[in-house]
Amino acid sequence: MNGRVERLRAEMERLEVASFLVSNPVNVRYLTGFESSNAFVLVKHKNVVLMIDGRYAEAARTVEGVEAQIVERDFLPGVAAHLGRLAEGPVGFESDHVTVARHADLLSTGLELEPVAALPMTLRAVKEPAELDAIRRAAQVVDAVLARLAEESVVGKTEADVAWWIMRAIHEEGADDVSFEPIVGSGPNAALPHHHPGDRRLGAGETVVVDLGAKVDGYCSDCTRTFATGELPEALREAYSVCARAQEAALAEVHAGADSRGLDSIARREIEAAGHEVLHGLGHGVGLEVHELPVLRQTAAGPLAAGNVVTIEPGVYLSGRGGVRIEDLVVVAEGGAEVLSEFTKELVTLN
Amino acid sequence: MNGRVERLRAEMERLEVASFLVSNPVNVRYLTGFESSNAFVLVKHKNVVLMIDGRYAEAARTVEGVEAQIVERDFLPGVAAHLGRLAEGPVGFESDHVTVARHADLLSTGLELEPVAALPMTLRAVKEPAELDAIRRAAQVVDAVLARLAEESVVGKTEADVAWWIMRAIHEEGADDVSFEPIVGSGPNAALPHHHPGDRRLGAGETVVVDLGAKVDGYCSDCTRTFATGELPEALREAYSVCARAQEAALAEVHAGADSRGLDSIARREIEAAGHEVLHGLGHGVGLEVHELPVLRQTAAGPLAAGNVVTIEPGVYLSGRGGVRIEDLVVVAEGGAEVLSEFTKELVTLN
Repeated sequence: MNGRVERLRAEMERLEVASFLVSNPVNVRYLTGFESSNAFVLVKHKNVVLMIDGRYAEAARTVEGVEAQIVERDFLPGVAAHLGRLAEGPVGFESDHVTVARHADLLSTGLELEPVAALPMTLRAVKEPAELDAIRRAAQVVDAVLARLAEESVVGKTEADVAWWIMRAIHEEGADDVSFEPIVGSGPNAALPHHHPGDRRLGAGETVVVDLGAKVDGYCSDCTRTFATGELPEALREAYSVCARAQEAALAEVHAGADSRGLDSIARREIEAAGHEVLHGLGHGVGLEVHELPVLRQTAAGPLAAGNVVTIEPGVYLSGRGGVRIEDLVVVAEGGAEVLSEFTKELVTLN
Repeated sequence: MNGRVERLRAEMERLEVASFLVSNPVNVRYLTGFESSNAFVLVKHKNVVLMIDGRYAEAARTVEGVEAQIVERDFLPGVAAHLGRLAEGPVGFESDHVTVARHADLLSTGLELEPVAALPMTLRAVKEPAELDAIRRAAQVVDAVLARLAEESVVGKTEADVAWWIMRAIHEEGADDVSFEPIVGSGPNAALPHHHPGDRRLGAGETVVVDLGAKVDGYCSDCTRTFATGELPEALREAYSVCARAQEAALAEVHAGADSRGLDSIARREIEAAGHEVLHGLGHGVGLEVHELPVLRQTAAGPLAAGNVVTIEPGVYLSGRGGVRIEDLVVVAEGGAEVLSEFTKELVTLN
C-alpha cells in the first residue's frame, strides 16, 4: 500500500499541494485498503488520516498506516470541520469527484483549495503485479463461464434468463461478484451496445452479444463474445468478419507507447471502410472499476504505459437487425500485449 | 411521467431558472423513463431535451415526450456545447451531482448557472401509487426470502455463502435484481453495521444480522432481521429487546408531519438509556435508489410527508461480541404508517 501513497506524494510535490483530500471511495480503497461508502482520506507529507463515520469505527481499527478519525456522517460539520483542523494548505482535491455542493462546504473552512483532476485514478492505471494477478484470475473466471455457456441450450430462453445463468456461473466459478450486470443482447437488441437484458427470447439465426465480467479480490475483468444461434444472414456474417478484423488489427498494435486515439482509429477505419457506423470507442482501462483509465477513443490521445490493463472491443451494429462486438482484456507490455481473454474469437454457434 | 416534469417546472418557476440540467442518471430515469449511464436532460418550459451519446441513439428513439439529441460522449465538447445552444438562462443544475470539473466545463459555455441542491431528489421523495405498488412487491420478495431462510440450515456456512443464497432466492422470487449486496454479519461481525459478508462461518449461539433488499420494476426494498443461532448469551438477548423496543417506539410515531430528527431521537433515547452507543441514524428514504430522501437522523430535521417511503432501523452493537438491527420499510400516511415488511420481528432461531 505504502508505495501508492508515496507515488501520490510525489505528484503532490509536483503540484505544490501540502495535503490531498481523497473522496472517491475506490481511491480511498486503493490508497488504504479500506472499503466504505463514506470515508475520506487526507494524505499529508507526514501522515495519512482516514476519516470515517461511526458505522465504520470498528472496521477502521484494522487499517494499517493511517490515523483514524471518526467524524459526523454528513459532510458538514463533519469532514469539512476536521479538515480545517487537520489539513495544511494548499489542499488538493478530486475535482472530478467532489460536487459543487461539497466544494462549497470545503470553501467554508477557509482552506486554500486546488482542484486536481484524475490524480489517484492516474496512479491506478498502471497495475502492480498483485493487481495483475487478481485481474488474470477474474479473466479466467469469464473464460470458464463462456466455455460452459457454449455447451448450454439457450434458444427460446429470455435474455434475462441467460444473464442470470451467467451471474450464477460467475459465482460458481469462484468469483466474489460480477464486475457489472451481464449484457445479453439478442436479435435486434444486439444492435444496442448497452442493452439491458429483458424478456425477449433468443431466436434462431441471430447474433447474441454476451458482455460479462467477474470480480476477484476486488479486481474486475471484462470480455465480450458474440455468438450465433444457427445459420446467420449474410449481413450478420459480414458484420462478424469486419468486427473480428477490426479487433485483431487494433490488438496487433497494442504496446507500451502506442497512442490511444491511434488504436481507436485503426479499428474505426476497418469498420467505416466496410460501410458501417462506429457507435463507441475502442476500449477502456479495467481494474478496481470496470471503467477506468486509460480510455481508448478519438477524444483521448496519449501513449499507453506498460502495466495498463485495457479492453479492445470494437462493435459493428446493424440497426434493427443485430450486432457484433468482440472484446479482449489485455495487459499492455513493452513490446506488445498479453491477452487475458482466452475464449475463442471464432464464431461459435449456440443451440 | 409528465406530472413529474410539471412538478419540476413549478420548482423552476419558484427558483427563477429558465432551464434545468439533470445529470444524475437516476433523476434522468425518473423524469423521462430513460435508463443510461451517460444521458442528460434539459428541462425547459416548452420542451424537454434528452442528450445521449451514440451508443444510446437506438434506445432513445422509444422515449416519449422528449426531443433526443446525440452529443459526443465526453462532457466537453459534447453536452456543454449543446447546452450553450439549447438552454435559456439562468440554468439550474444539480449541485449535489455535478462535479467541480464538470462545472468548469459548464461555466466555459458562458451560461448563467444556478446551483440547486436535491431538486429532482426532493420530488422523488413522495411516491406515486404505481411507485408504491412496485416497492410493495419488492418488499414481498424480501418477506418470502426471509421465510425461506428461516427454514434453511446455515450454521457452519460462511457469511458469503449465505449472502449468495439470499441473492439467488431474491432472483427466484421474481425480483429483477437485488437492491444492494445482502449484508450477512455473524458473531463479532454483527457489530459492524456495514459488514461485507466474508469467509467467517456462522457459529452457534450468535446473532446474525441479515440486511437485504430486492428490486422490482426498478424500485427497491430494504429490510433487516437479526436471527439467533441457538441460545444467545444474556447480553445479546438484552440487546435484541432494546433494539426491538426502540424500533417499535419510533415506528409508532411515524405519520405525515412527524419530525425526522424527533423520530431518530425516540429510538436513540431507548438505546442510550440501556447504556449502548448509537452508531447510525434511524433510517432513510427508499425508491429508485435504496438510499434517498428523506433522511431520518439528528442532522436532518423536517416533517415527513404522506407518500414518503422510509426505513425504521435502529441498531444495538456490542463491539467484538455481536449486534442486532431490526429494520422495517414503511409508507408514511396521514394518520400513521403502512408497514411493508411483514416477516416477524420476534427473535427467530436458525439451525
